[in-house]
Amino acid sequence: MGVVVQKFGGTSVADAERISHVAQTVAATADAGHSVCVVVSAMGRATDDLLALAASVSRDPHPRELDMLLSAGECVSIALLSLALHDLGREAVSLTGFQAGIFTDSRHGSARILTVRPERVADALRRGRIAIIAGFQGMSCDTDVTTLGRGGSDTTAVAIAAAVGADVCEIYTDVDGVFTADPRVVPEAVKLDMLSYDEMLELAASGAQVLMTRSVEYARVHGVRVQVRSSFTDGEGTWIVGDDELAERAIVSGVAHDSGEAKVTLHRVLHRPGVAAVVFGALADAGVNVDMIVQNVSHEGRTDISFTVPERESDRAGSVLADAAREIGAGAVEIDPDVGKVSLIGAGMRSNPGVAAEMFAALGAAGIDVELISTSSIRISCIVRAADVERATQVVHDAFADALAYSAAREAVAPS
Amino acid sequence: MGVVVQKFGGTSVADAERISHVAQTVAATADAGHSVCVVVSAMGRATDDLLALAASVSRDPHPRELDMLLSAGECVSIALLSLALHDLGREAVSLTGFQAGIFTDSRHGSARILTVRPERVADALRRGRIAIIAGFQGMSCDTDVTTLGRGGSDTTAVAIAAAVGADVCEIYTDVDGVFTADPRVVPEAVKLDMLSYDEMLELAASGAQVLMTRSVEYARVHGVRVQVRSSFTDGEGTWIVGDDELAERAIVSGVAHDSGEAKVTLHRVLHRPGVAAVVFGALADAGVNVDMIVQNVSHEGRTDISFTVPERESDRAGSVLADAAREIGAGAVEIDPDVGKVSLIGAGMRSNPGVAAEMFAALGAAGIDVELISTSSIRISCIVRAADVERATQVVHDAFADALAYSAAREAVAPS
Repeated sequence: MGVVVQKFGGTSVADAERISHVAQTVAATADAGHSVCVVVSAMGRATDDLLALAASVSRDPHPRELDMLLSAGECVSIALLSLALHDLGREAVSLTGFQAGIFTDSRHGSARILTVRPERVADALRRGRIAIIAGFQGMSCDTDVTTLGRGGSDTTAVAIAAAVGADVCEIYTDVDGVFTADPRVVPEAVKLDMLSYDEMLELAASGAQVLMTRSVEYARVHGVRVQVRSSFTDGEGTWIVGDDELAERAIVSGVAHDSGEAKVTLHRVLHRPGVAAVVFGALADAGVNVDMIVQNVSHEGRTDISFTVPERESDRAGSVLADAAREIGAGAVEIDPDVGKVSLIGAGMRSNPGVAAEMFAALGAAGIDVELISTSSIRISCIVRAADVERATQVVHDAFADALAYSAAREAVAPS
Repeated sequence: MGVVVQKFGGTSVADAERISHVAQTVAATADAGHSVCVVVSAMGRATDDLLALAASVSRDPHPRELDMLLSAGECVSIALLSLALHDLGREAVSLTGFQAGIFTDSRHGSARILTVRPERVADALRRGRIAIIAGFQGMSCDTDVTTLGRGGSDTTAVAIAAAVGADVCEIYTDVDGVFTADPRVVPEAVKLDMLSYDEMLELAASGAQVLMTRSVEYARVHGVRVQVRSSFTDGEGTWIVGDDELAERAIVSGVAHDSGEAKVTLHRVLHRPGVAAVVFGALADAGVNVDMIVQNVSHEGRTDISFTVPERESDRAGSVLADAAREIGAGAVEIDPDVGKVSLIGAGMRSNPGVAAEMFAALGAAGIDVELISTSSIRISCIVRAADVERATQVVHDAFADALAYSAAREAVAPS
């Protein structure tokens, strides 16, 4: 049998009892004949506690030193899981990001993996040992400790799976898999058995919390088969695979929502080449993540440009835009934090033109005003009032209930 | 001005407030024009907390994994101290044992430093930065994290001082320096201004807690000038230097006591070559630290061998010896944990033959029974009942009060 990578998040290793439980899961996988790599996050609230300590000695923590601090969290959890496996009589070896060969660029706090040199991991597996790898962390070419940012442990797991040629990268979580919508908002949401990388990417980018975009991108590029499954139950969870592995394309596969957006409008922008570049260049320089840019036809040589940003970045966006507006002679800058986004995702919608109309009709029938619309070839996103977000999610899910249920039960292609 | 190494223990960095205080001390040293390396231990009870976590997932923690776990403690404290220095507007860079170039053998839990490659430390100093180095930890040639055992941070500090050619290695502690006896036991004990490596070694080996033997050995071999001083007051503390730096040799320089010893006697051992080797070879193989071996003249071809071991190792010593006694046909093994050791140290006693007699006379006059005696050229140690240890320390200090006061005020040789 081949190599299995298993990733456990902070809640799965929050205390000694849960660590022992994870050790049993891992041991059972090894006993079934697999070579096992485990990627773990810091214990429960460890990262938050370390951030609080940093805030208590520094008003504006230095990113390099913050990464050194945070990396301690995973060193604790990998060592404890390894100790727990030894206690079960298994040979395990804990490896820091550096020891596991995770080399990154130097962008502290949100480093990107440049290369993985998994010699020590491979060596451990060859000796029949279980490799326990620190998620979220790596080492830069200057041998500085780096961290990968939010959801970094998922990316570590996928990167290790790619580097050692694992059969599967299992992401253990506190839900049963990826659902057609957030079950806390849409009780009838059903678990998806299989999903393509593209669909998962759009779901993640549209607000689905279960996996971070970067880990899915990495999995798609390297063809890593990902399985999102529960730490608590024994179900199959959700497989995320290449388009070619799916027997058929779903028209729609999920409804995602995101309440953490703010709508920004720059009024009466002179419609001439280069203006948009000034606006979005300034935002990019300030590190503001811009989503859903909408520019409509102009009147009398001027137009309004609207876009969304994460709500926590809206203050920064506002001050950047005030300067930019002066520079380009635009009108007022308006920031509206009271909005949210509802997105319908499906790889088959590009060949089914009626989907958008059906979504707008459902929202309209429910009396929900759509303020901005943007689409990709496999996604339709609508900005609505924040107060309407959850109801809009439910309404769209209802409208496509049959199609969603159908795609939730998609199967893999028969092995050729 | 040159390089100063400053070492702060766990109590000095126990919380955010104390870390900020240490940052101020370090910044003041840098402002005075020195290049500064700082070595820190884990925060307060961090190591104990990690050990408790290990015990909660493993009955017999694997040494390699325990080292990985414990090393996280210093990663937290170096990062926080560095953050606190940045908050004071100083450029600081935290370095793990590995990053600071501390390479050790693979004896997890009590690794020895093989070599120090201080390139990153030197580079930081060259750029005018303060280097904050994790004490207690290193990396083996297999790139495994190791720890140096008790007092390991002192050894790290001295090793870094040697590697970068520091002018001084300052060991900050919660006492004012090294005293002629433990002030908690002998209230009249006075602080020693200067002390030779040899004297400090014998004091440390005889129970003085202020510095661990290994760090003093390292300092002696590499000629590192060590200054033991208080974190809380501004005094000069105690200088530990080479014999050649001391203007004169003290007859006696301190009285040390150790209540954590057990006396072991192996009765009726056949007096023939090789027997002692069997006994102490077996103990060494079991990792028992033997001190004060005493073997007296034999009667009828048999003799008694006595020695002391740390009390916590006496059970292990007992079981090892039961086997060894059978092998060599010896009599009973007797273990007496109810003893303690009082030692008088002084580099000048070899040329002053009356010292031993005076010590025994003082103990005798106080009615304290001496059970074992062993001497080195600069130390006389007596094993007494545990209940008598503190009184014996006081009695010996009283008997040599004038000579001790004299040596406490010794001066350095005038620079030639």
